[in-house]
Amino acid sequence: MRAYFSRRYRFSASHRLHSDSYSETENQKTYGKCNNPHGHGHNYIVEVTTGGQVDAQTGMVCDLVKLDDAVRKNVVERFDLTNLNLDECFRKLVPTTENLCIAIHERLMPVFQSGVLGQVDLVRVRVEETANNFFEFTGK
Amino acid sequence: MRAYFSRRYRFSASHRLHSDSYSETENQKTYGKCNNPHGHGHNYIVEVTTGGQVDAQTGMVCDLVKLDDAVRKNVVERFDLTNLNLDECFRKLVPTTENLCIAIHERLMPVFQSGVLGQVDLVRVRVEETANNFFEFTGK
Amino acid sequence: MRAYFSRRYRFSASHRLHSDSYSETENQKTYGKCNNPHGHGHNYIVEVTTGGQVDAQTGMVCDLVKLDDAVRKNVVERFDLTNLNLDECFRKLVPTTENLCIAIHERLMPVFQSGVLGQVDLVRVRVEETANNFFEFTGK
Amino acid sequence: MRAYFSRRYRFSASHRLHSDSYSETENQKTYGKCNNPHGHGHNYIVEVTTGGQVDAQTGMVCDLVKLDDAVRKNVVERFDLTNLNLDECFRKLVPTTENLCIAIHERLMPVFQSGVLGQVDLVRVRVEETANNFFEFTGK
Amino acid sequence: MRAYFSRRYRFSASHRLHSDSYSETENQKTYGKCNNPHGHGHNYIVEVTTGGQVDAQTGMVCDLVKLDDAVRKNVVERFDLTNLNLDECFRKLVPTTENLCIAIHERLMPVFQSGVLGQVDLVRVRVEETANNFFEFTGK
Amino acid sequence: MRAYFSRRYRFSASHRLHSDSYSETENQKTYGKCNNPHGHGHNYIVEVTTGGQVDAQTGMVCDLVKLDDAVRKNVVERFDLTNLNLDECFRKLVPTTENLCIAIHERLMPVFQSGVLGQVDLVRVRVEETANNFFEFTGK
Repeated sequence: MRAYFSRRYRFSASHRLHSDSYSETENQKTYGKCNNPHGHGHNYIVEVTTGGQVDAQTGMVCDLVKLDDAVRKNVVERFDLTNLNLDECFRKLVPTTENLCIAIHERLMPVFQSGVLGQVDLVRVRVEETANNFFEFTGK
Repeated sequence: MRAYFSRRYRFSASHRLHSDSYSETENQKTYGKCNNPHGHGHNYIVEVTTGGQVDAQTGMVCDLVKLDDAVRKNVVERFDLTNLNLDECFRKLVPTTENLCIAIHERLMPVFQSGVLGQVDLVRVRVEETANNFFEFTGK
Repeated sequence: MRAYFSRRYRFSASHRLHSDSYSETENQKTYGKCNNPHGHGHNYIVEVTTGGQVDAQTGMVCDLVKLDDAVRKNVVERFDLTNLNLDECFRKLVPTTENLCIAIHERLMPVFQSGVLGQVDLVRVRVEETANNFFEFTGK
Repeated sequence: MRAYFSRRYRFSASHRLHSDSYSETENQKTYGKCNNPHGHGHNYIVEVTTGGQVDAQTGMVCDLVKLDDAVRKNVVERFDLTNLNLDECFRKLVPTTENLCIAIHERLMPVFQSGVLGQVDLVRVRVEETANNFFEFTGK
Repeated sequence: MRAYFSRRYRFSASHRLHSDSYSETENQKTYGKCNNPHGHGHNYIVEVTTGGQVDAQTGMVCDLVKLDDAVRKNVVERFDLTNLNLDECFRKLVPTTENLCIAIHERLMPVFQSGVLGQVDLVRVRVEETANNFFEFTGK
Repeated sequence: MRAYFSRRYRFSASHRLHSDSYSETENQKTYGKCNNPHGHGHNYIVEVTTGGQVDAQTGMVCDLVKLDDAVRKNVVERFDLTNLNLDECFRKLVPTTENLCIAIHERLMPVFQSGVLGQVDLVRVRVEETANNFFEFTGK
C-alpha cells in the first residue's frame, strides 16, 4: 500500500511568451499581452508529489530534509528572482508554465532515480502560475 | 506525454434543494434547512481541467483565450447571479452541486468535441460549493 | 493595554438587491444582474473583532465559548440557509452586504452591552461576500 | 458514471516524532527538532473524498449529515485537542502524518463498508499538516 | 456612521530593484537577488478600501461598477503584464512595492476627489506582493 | 507620510491551557478540552506590521533581510517545534494566544528600539492560531 506526500515550494520570476519561430503578428495573436517585449512576472508555487511505502520504522514516505534540499538546489535557487527566458531550460522552448512544469519534472527525476531519496517515486509536479491557473505533469 | 492545465472560474447563485417526487416530510428529512422554501446561495468556484500534448511551437496545452470564452458563454454567464432552480438544466433535476457539476461538464463537452479548442480533452470539472465542500465529475 | 481577538463564522444565504422606492428601470440601473427577480446567493464569512484587557488569570480577552454561543444564536442560526430579503432586518432595508454588516453589528452590540461576555468591546464586524469583496462596520 | 464528493474537517493536536526502536541519536537524526521531547502541534485538515453514483432522486452522492456524523465520531472528536502520541492508534506507530492519514482511513473504512452511508466508496483520505505539506492515502 | 467597502484586484508584472544613485555594489547589498539585471515578477493583489455613509436608498457605500471601472483603467490595465521599471511612475523611483502602493494611491485619489464615485473616501490601498508580504498606504 | 510593511512568519508548537491559580474544576470550566493534560498544538502564523517613511533612495520602509533575521532569531527559532508551556515566557503566564502575541511583541520591541532596523516602528503583532481565530496586539 502506497501513501503520497506532497510539499509546496515558492519562487518569483519573470517571463515573456514569445516563439522565435513565429512572426511578430503571430506572437501577438498567440500570446496577446504576455508577448509584451519587456516581460511580466508571477509568484509561482511548485507542488511536488511523491509516492511510496510508509517506512515501518520512520513512519515516513520520504525524507523531508532531503526532498527540500533537492528541490531547493534544482528548482528554487535556480529560478527564484530570475527571468525565465534567460535560463538554459528555455533556450529553445517558450517559457510557458506548461514548459516550466515539465522542466522542473525533468530536473527532479534524476534525483529520484539516483536513490538518494530512497524507494520513493516522483508522482507529479504541479505549478501554480496564479490563484486561478495551474499546470500538472506526471511524466506519462 | 500529456500535461494538464486547470483554470478556475467563479459565479454566485442561489438554489433550493427540493425533489418534486418527495413528500414535504421526505424533502425535509433529506435536505434539512437546504429545503427552506425561499432558497439560499453560494459563491461557486468551477475548476476546469484540460489535458493534452504541449504544442511544440506555442508551448501550450490549450488556448487560454478560447477556453475562457467557452466557459464564460456556457457556464459563467448562464449561472452567475441566477436562481439555479429556474435554469432549464434543473427542470427535472434537483440543483444539488453534484448535478450542477455534471450539467457544467455536459455543457462544456460539446465545445471540446467540436475541435474549436484543438487537440485537448476535458479531463475533469470540479465545483466548490463552500470552502469545505467540493464535487468532481470526469464523465466516466 | 488592550489586545484584540477576532473570530470567523460562516453562513450561506441568498438575496436580491431591489429597492421598493425605485422604479424597475432604476433598480436595473443601480443593481444590474443583482436585481434579477429570483435572487442569487453567497457564502458569507463574518469576522467579529473584540477588544479588551487580557485577563491576568485566564490569559484571555474574551470567553470563546460564550462568544460562539452569542454569534451562533444571533447571526449564524438566523441567517444560514435563508433568503435574506425575507428576514425581519430587511423589511425596510435593501439586503446589501453593507446593510447586513450593520444588522449583524446591531444584533451583537446588546450582547456585549449586557456584560455576559465580561469587560470586552465589540470593535468591528467584517462581512466577506466573495473572495474579492468585504465590508466593515465599527459602529462609529 | 461516478461523481466525487469531498469534504474538509479540521482538528488541532500535538505530536512528537520518536521511534522506540531508534537510539536517541538516530531519533535526532531522523526527526530533527520534531523529536523535541515535549512535542509540538498542528492544525490538521482532513479531506475525505467519497465516490459513487449520483442518486437519481436526491441528486446526491452521499448523505452529508451521515458522513459528518461518521467523521465527527471517528476522527474529529477522537483527535481534536489531544496529544496524538497517547492515542491507541499510535501505541506501536510513530504519529507521523503519513500514519495519521492511514489511521483515519482505517477508522472510516468500516463505516463505508457497513452500508450506513449507502452505495458510496471511500476514495481517498488527505491530511494537511501545514499549508505546505499534505499526505494522501487511498488504501491501494 | 461610516461603513467600509474593500475590493481586491489582481495583476501580474515584473520589476527589478535598482537605484540609479547607488553603485553596483550598493545595489547588490541593498536589494540582493532582487537587483538581478533581468528582473523577476509577482502576482500583485491590490485591495482598495473605501469609506462613507451607507446610502439610505441604495444600501451601498460606493458604486461597485464605477469603482471597478476606475481601478481597471488607472491600475489594472496600466500595470498588468508589464515591466514596472518601464512605467512612467518609476522613471525616478525604484519600483519597490512600497512605491507601487503609493503610485496606485496617487492615481486613484483624483478619481475619488472628482466626485464621480459620490461621497466616498479612498481610505487605504494595500498591495500584496506575495502570500507573505504586503504593503499599505493611507495617504497620511 | 507613512507606509506600512507587513510580513508573515510561521511556526508549529503545542500548548496546554492551564492556570496554576485555578482548581482542576475551574481549569476544566475555563479551558474545556484545551485543558487536556497532554496538550494539543497549532500551526501559528505571526504577522509583523512595521510603519515608517519610505526611504527616498531605497524605496523601502524597512530592511527585509534584517527584519527576517530579527524575527527568526527572536520568534521562529525560539518557538518552532516546541511546547510553549515550557518556554520561559510562560513560566507565570498561561500560554494562550493572547499572551503569545504579547510575548512576541515584547521580544521584538527592543530590536526596533535598538535602531538596528532604522527609523521604523513596530506597529502591530498579529498571531493566527487557526484559520478562524486571530489575535492582535499594538502595545497600546
